[in-house]
Formats: sequence, structure tokens, C-alpha cells
Amino acid sequence: MDADQKILKSFLPVSEDSHFPIQNIPFGVFYPNSDATKTPRCGTRIGDNVIDLAYLESKNYFTGPLFSTLAKENKRVFNQRQLNEFMSLEREYWREARKTIQDLFQEGSPLSKETSVLSECVYPIKEVTLCLPAQIGDFTDFNSSKHHSYNMGLLLRGYKEVQQNWLRLPIGYAGRSSSVVISGAKIPRPRGQAKLPDQNDSEYIASKKLDFEMELGFFLGGKLNNQGTPLTTAQVWDHIFGFVMLNDWSARDLQTWEYVPLGPLNSKNFNTTISPWIVTLDAFEEFRVKLPVQEPEPHLYLKDENMWGYDITMETLIKTSKSDKYEPLCKSNYKYLHWTIPQQVAHHTVSGCNLRPGDLVGSGACSGPEEGEYGTFVELSWNGKKPFKLSTGEERTFCEDGDSILLTGYSKSKNGYIIGFGECEGTILPAVDLSIYEKK
Amino acid sequence: MDADQKILKSFLPVSEDSHFPIQNIPFGVFYPNSDATKTPRCGTRIGDNVIDLAYLESKNYFTGPLFSTLAKENKRVFNQRQLNEFMSLEREYWREARKTIQDLFQEGSPLSKETSVLSECVYPIKEVTLCLPAQIGDFTDFNSSKHHSYNMGLLLRGYKEVQQNWLRLPIGYAGRSSSVVISGAKIPRPRGQAKLPDQNDSEYIASKKLDFEMELGFFLGGKLNNQGTPLTTAQVWDHIFGFVMLNDWSARDLQTWEYVPLGPLNSKNFNTTISPWIVTLDAFEEFRVKLPVQEPEPHLYLKDENMWGYDITMETLIKTSKSDKYEPLCKSNYKYLHWTIPQQVAHHTVSGCNLRPGDLVGSGACSGPEEGEYGTFVELSWNGKKPFKLSTGEERTFCEDGDSILLTGYSKSKNGYIIGFGECEGTILPAVDLSIYEKK
Repeated sequence: MDADQKILKSFLPVSEDSHFPIQNIPFGVFYPNSDATKTPRCGTRIGDNVIDLAYLESKNYFTGPLFSTLAKENKRVFNQRQLNEFMSLEREYWREARKTIQDLFQEGSPLSKETSVLSECVYPIKEVTLCLPAQIGDFTDFNSSKHHSYNMGLLLRGYKEVQQNWLRLPIGYAGRSSSVVISGAKIPRPRGQAKLPDQNDSEYIASKKLDFEMELGFFLGGKLNNQGTPLTTAQVWDHIFGFVMLNDWSARDLQTWEYVPLGPLNSKNFNTTISPWIVTLDAFEEFRVKLPVQEPEPHLYLKDENMWGYDITMETLIKTSKSDKYEPLCKSNYKYLHWTIPQQVAHHTVSGCNLRPGDLVGSGACSGPEEGEYGTFVELSWNGKKPFKLSTGEERTFCEDGDSILLTGYSKSKNGYIIGFGECEGTILPAVDLSIYEKK
Repeated sequence: MDADQKILKSFLPVSEDSHFPIQNIPFGVFYPNSDATKTPRCGTRIGDNVIDLAYLESKNYFTGPLFSTLAKENKRVFNQRQLNEFMSLEREYWREARKTIQDLFQEGSPLSKETSVLSECVYPIKEVTLCLPAQIGDFTDFNSSKHHSYNMGLLLRGYKEVQQNWLRLPIGYAGRSSSVVISGAKIPRPRGQAKLPDQNDSEYIASKKLDFEMELGFFLGGKLNNQGTPLTTAQVWDHIFGFVMLNDWSARDLQTWEYVPLGPLNSKNFNTTISPWIVTLDAFEEFRVKLPVQEPEPHLYLKDENMWGYDITMETLIKTSKSDKYEPLCKSNYKYLHWTIPQQVAHHTVSGCNLRPGDLVGSGACSGPEEGEYGTFVELSWNGKKPFKLSTGEERTFCEDGDSILLTGYSKSKNGYIIGFGECEGTILPAVDLSIYEKK
């Protein structure tokens, strides 16, 4: 870690429990509510203020060598509706931008006295609308927690062991990019087909087993691989733009019926929620940990010299329609993952599959070994057999209409600050009415 | 069918066996090789000529009421790098554009005498470079041929019957959009993991079972559904922009090892080839047929009053590195599909999944009931047990390096012309060398 980070302090107010001190500097997209054109532009967040990076870019506040060159070429990466242009640059650019923003917004900086400039580019978070941070070309979701994989195999298929292919490769599925939304978007309960074990045929229903999956996602960036050319594990880190919290909403009853042999489609494609701020690798650098040695020894293309993971606490909370406050469902950690990020990405490309800046990759539910660490309702309620008791006296086996499910994640520094994601929330709406099928 | 279609003739030359008479008018994207800026723009094709629609649009040749209104608003839909803007308009616009182009290019039209205009907008096909026609937001591939599903179940899993869920819903998987390429792009053989039944562990290999899948795909367009709101079968047809031939390249050995429980990832994500010209529904209208009544009766959301399919002949040919001409591998028909297009799309959205203009949907391998109608190598060679004999004396169980696999599709009109797709071709390159994993 850069030694300066620990003493860094912003002139903008940051509460002690904020996820967004000047040490974070995440990237996102927003527009000020006062802008009648509602034009999205790129921004960052310090405390409860959002900063308009497009404005600062247009006024040439990015004076580092790399951004100065971009300015000379009239290339504007923050005056964009998504972060993809910025993500397409290489990691040195992302680092320079973060460093510049930290310099600009630290206590005593020249900018701290330019009140007229600040009035043009700093907005209270309540006065902006947050947008999807990237145009997501493809979304892939892995299943990299051994605890989750073990629980799911036992619960749904009666397996006593994690399957052999899971131990040999990072299992994942191609997800849906059109339905990725940011925190706050409502989640209509999906309809579809399900067949209970004691039924002869499937039924057309509104899902009765709507679940969350507590995941961490990462966005890819930089100059990525051409079709036909795999990335090696050593090449991967420079292509990880940053992290988000990710809720891979899943309809377990639809999934059980549809998933053989081509995997989940409707049980996952209706919604995926991400937190709006993408937190860089550099912001989490001080929380890097070594993951355990893997057995069996990975195949050549999956060998990862470093085996780096991140110590990031992940929590899911619930607020029902009868309650006015959130209460915890589970608490786990990103370091419980078996497969590392380089292994996931190297595996994704080993076939020659090309990746693009703005692609989103999920970890799979980050369940830990203990019951309170399970990252889904299907594990927490043991597929409905052990209802989860809430402080309101209510019980839950899966999500009910009106429930708000809130994921969050953070790491606490020894130096007193917190690096985190803020909120990744969704509230369940009732399924659409069947009258849509009536003739008009 | 419009009665005029049968007597319609273009002043541009069209050979008798051309897939692109003036009755077709497909849409695609290209740039003239003479353009040093290589700027893609939208076009169509008549015979062996490509027509620059962006040029005709800029000169206000689209004089129908809908396009006149667009012109007044200064909205240019063909002067774009992809067809997405045009696809985002409603079906009436697609129809008006096709009709206008037919009027412009029919024998004796005023344009036929404007040689200086024609010299600016008509290019021999050999003097242009074709491009991917759309920015594909998401690619979903169904598995809608009962014959293919039966063969695969029997071959790979020993099932004597099509599975119950297959008969109840259009099974499909989320594919990869980054790796969709157009005809002519080379196909590097994928690497990955496979485990043979007699092996204790998986191996890291170049796929030994690289296969094609002969499919038809369709592109979506118009004002599509919002998240949470399913499309009904009756609403679907207005959202089908047009068809392409589609080769869902598949590595069967990687697939067998990876697909439980989340479906295919690396075995499919390396490449998908489509034909470059999108042929409209209207061009195929005279070839519409009724598909058989389904048993069991579909669930409410899958009921399709019309049960329309299309009588489109589909063929796959092969040319090995030892040969200088193509020879047939199989010949089938799009009308063999069990699930209709409205059923596929209604099912895709029943969960609330939102679709977008430019999304691509595949049919799955269109195998017919007879051996010569099987649309994959795994069926043709019965998973390698019955090598397929070629006229060169060579045998094939799966694709070998240097093989060119060519898909095509067409319908022959009683009125003497052919509506078709042209070529959907890919040539297999050897897998990337393992030296990429050597330390640098």
C-alpha cells in the first residue's frame, strides 16, 4: 500500500462509518436531478457527495502525463454515458485518474478553495440519479465457493461430495446482460414453469422460491484478448477494472425444472442487481490475502503463482413490508472462494473466447463454512425445511413480495477507514397479472 | 404474398440461382474496400451487387411517409455502423424501406437511368468488406428440434425418450455475444478440459470433438418489452426483424465435462458464425407453413394460435484441405422445429426478462428425422462410431484442422426465384500453441 493512503483526508465531509473515504474513489455514472436533459456522465463519490468527473475533465483538472496526452488528442473519457471508454484504457490510466482525484480533493488542496468550481461539480448524493455504470457486453457468473457448491449439490441433488468437475475447473454459466440493474430497481417476481417432485407435470406459476445470491462481481477493462488467444493467469490482474456487489436473483423452482441439460435460463435471466459504484483493485490492495493451496494441483492453464484473494466482508440484510428496519440474514467473506480471479478469467478464455471492456463477471454465492455464512435463502432455510426466523416474528424460506434484500460489502483498514460498496438493494414486487394473456 | 412480387425484376443483374433477387432485399453492414476510412454503413444486396443505403438515405431517396418523417427529424438510420437504429424502429418502417428499395431498383425505374448516382451507391460484392450486421446485446440459443434433442439424449446420456421438460418448454441457454462473427472468419480450435469415460481425471487438451450445429437465427427489433413484462405469443411476430443462418460451433468433449449443473460455457463461447445478410420475415412470407399440433397441450403462456413455421431448406457442406470443392454433409428444413418462434420468445420473456433490438436468438440444430438430415457431426457420425465418408476418400467424425464448413439456406418460389442467405462459412485453424504459458 501507498504509505500516503493512511494519512490522506478529504476536505469534503466523510463520516467514520462511510464506505467512501478519499482512500476509496470508486467510479460510477450519474446525472444531477437538476439537469433537465438527464445526461449521464461519469463520476466518483467521497462521503455523501458525488463528483462530476466529466466537468473536471472538461476544465483540464486531470494534469497527469497520461491524461494530458488524452486531452491533447481531444479524447474525453468521462464525458460519456458509460464508463466503457475509461475502462478501455489501460490500468495505468485508472491509477493516474484515482491519484489525481485524491490530490484534488485532499485537505488543503488548491481546489478546496475554488468554491465556484466545486459548486459546479460536487452534488449531495440525494440530488443525483445513479445509472448503470457500464454497457455490459456479456455477463458471466461463476460458482466459485466450495461451501455453496457442496450445499447446493446436497440439497438439490443429494450429492455427498462436491462434484469432480467442480474441483477441476471454475464452473460458470453465461448470464443475461440486458437485465442487469443497479441498486434500488424493483424486482418483479418471475413467472415460469415448475414441477414439484410429487407432481406428474409442470405448472405455470409465479415462482414460490425466489432467492438471492450474495456475490461479488468484477468488471473487465484494458486491451483484452483477441478471439482464439487465451489470457494466462499472469495476464489477468491488469484487466480487472474493479469490484461491485452483485445479487444473482434466482428462482429455484424454475431452475430445478429447466436446468438439464443446458443450464439455467429463465430462473436467472429476469434480474441481476449490482451496486452502482465500481471499487478499484487498488482501493482494496491492502486487504489482499493468500488463498489456500488447491487440491488436486490445477491444470497448466489454471496455475496461479500468487493465489491472491481479498478479505472483504459481505453481508445480506432483509426488511419486510411489516418492518421499518433492516436485519441481518447472513455474513460471509470473499476470501472463502476456492477459485481465484485469474483462474476464473483464464478458464473463461482458454477456449479462445474473447473478452471486452465492460464485461461483468460474478463470483457465485460466497457462502462460508458456517450456517450464518450461507449466501442464499435456499441454504439458509435448507430448501424451505428450516424457516429463517426474523425479529418481527415472521419466518422466511424464500423472498416474499414486499421484502427488500440489501447486500453490502466492505473492508476495515487498520488505519481507521472503511473501503466499501454501499448498498446493493432490491425490493420484490408481485408477479405480473395473468390478464396479459387475455385477448385484446 | 404481394401479387407484385412475382413479376418484380431488377435492372441490376441477378443470376437464376442467386439467393438475392429483388424479391429478397436483405439488410447488412459493409464498407467499400475503396474507402480508406473503412467506415461501416448499412446496405442491401441484389444479385452480386451491394447497395449503400446510407448514401441513398442521405440523398433522400427514401420518400415513403415514415422515412420522410424521419428525414424531417434529421434521423438517419442507415448511416450507422450497425443496423440497431433501423432495427429499433417498428415493423412498418422495415416494410416501407424494403418496398422503397424494390421500387428504386426495379426495371425501368427513374434511378435505373441515374448512372452517376448508381456509381456512388452500387458496388460489386467483391469490392466490399462485410461486417457484423448488429451490435448483439444478448445471444440466446434454443434447442427446438425434437429429432436433435432425441439423438443427443440417446447418444450422450443413453435416454430412450425426449425428456419431459423438453416437451414442456423451449429449452435454451444464454450464449456469448462477444464471439459472434460473420461468414469467413477463421475458427481457431478451442482448448479446454475433457475427461473420457475410461479416464480417472480430466485432461487439458485441444478439443478432439469440434462440431458444427446447423441452425437458423433471428434478430429482434421494434419496441420490445420492459423488464417484468412478458411478451405474449401474439405480440412476437412484429418483433422479428429477420433471419440469418447460424453455426453454433460446439466442442462436444469440453461440453460433456463442464455442463453439469450450469450448462455449456467454454464448449460454446469460443465462436458462433452467422451469415452476413439478415433476410426479413416479409421476404419469406410466401414460404410460411403450419407446424403440427403439439402434445401435450402447451401451458397458457405458450399457446400459439397460428403455429407458423417456414419451409426453408438448410444445407451444410464441407471442403477439406485436400479438396478444392464443397460436398454435402446434410440437408434439412427449418419446418422440422417443434417450438415456434412466438413460443421461443414468449418463453424467454415469461420470467420478465427484457429483450432489446439487435438481440440474436438461435433455433438449435435443425435436425430432421432421417440420417441425412442430421444437423451436427455428433449425430452424423453417431458420436464418432460411424465415420462419415467423403468423396475424397477421407473420413470425418468431427471437424479437422483445415476443414471449411459451409451452411446455407434458401426457399424456392413457385414464381421462379430463390430467397436465401448466401454463405455462412468457417475454416478451422489449429489450436493456439501451449508456449503462451511459458514465463516471459
